[in-house]
Amino acid sequence: MTTTAPRSTAQRLADVRALLAGPMLHGWVATAAPDGTGNPLPHLVPLSVVWLGERLVIALELTSRTARGLQASGVVRVGLGTTTDVVLVDAVLERSVPVAEAPTELADGYAAGTDWEPRSSGGSYGYVVLRPERIQAWRDEPEIAGRTVMRWGRWLES
Amino acid sequence: MTTTAPRSTAQRLADVRALLAGPMLHGWVATAAPDGTGNPLPHLVPLSVVWLGERLVIALELTSRTARGLQASGVVRVGLGTTTDVVLVDAVLERSVPVAEAPTELADGYAAGTDWEPRSSGGSYGYVVLRPERIQAWRDEPEIAGRTVMRWGRWLES
Repeated sequence: MTTTAPRSTAQRLADVRALLAGPMLHGWVATAAPDGTGNPLPHLVPLSVVWLGERLVIALELTSRTARGLQASGVVRVGLGTTTDVVLVDAVLERSVPVAEAPTELADGYAAGTDWEPRSSGGSYGYVVLRPERIQAWRDEPEIAGRTVMRWGRWLES
Repeated sequence: MTTTAPRSTAQRLADVRALLAGPMLHGWVATAAPDGTGNPLPHLVPLSVVWLGERLVIALELTSRTARGLQASGVVRVGLGTTTDVVLVDAVLERSVPVAEAPTELADGYAAGTDWEPRSSGGSYGYVVLRPERIQAWRDEPEIAGRTVMRWGRWLES
């Protein structure tokens, strides 16, 4: 296991912001929804993610398990980066809008950040806008302490 | 987006088995548990994963959110590989055993597959043995069809 000195909060913030602003961001998107008997079932899919106006934006079929889980619980946890350079985002559902009804700014912003254009995909796709509440960043064991870089929707600035 | 020809089921099986058998396997482990009001909440953490006797084995604090989610729902979804070379495993909780009570075979098998030794970590760690029921593998859009390589706990052999 790597045992370099832990990064400062300021350095982690800079690294997280650079990751979010980078091209072709992907995330592991975890949602939960009850099954027919009320048992909570986890769901997980890799999706393109676009960082737009301090929000995570994803596009998916609004009938998908991920979309239904978001409607059911209103919360999502997204794993970015890698398992050894982790950025974990807890976010809440801010809004969900069918592609045909999306504001140009949202649709153009999404298209600019990915290699996929939902407006050309037909079907029942929509954009989902997620507002981060907590973000954690760590690489290895010594970085577990101090891993929070956003709390209650606010960046920790020092 | 890459648009190579989709791999055959046999090739995907071989690739998945190679990934599982490889050293230092990590996964994004998604679980779900109800909050105080019964609302299902998703949880997601990166963990070391060891493939042992056709099972996924993880080690964690038995009081952690992941362990509690597993106890609550009995199911887990694990993302392996990367978001562009995806292996997704739906598994059920087979058993959970505190480190101090674990059979040597399990504890030695886990230690051999990772760089971490829970037996030296003290605390309330335990091993969790997960039995795969479904495994999907895909790299890009053309591989979405035919992505299932295990169904109902059985490998699709052709």
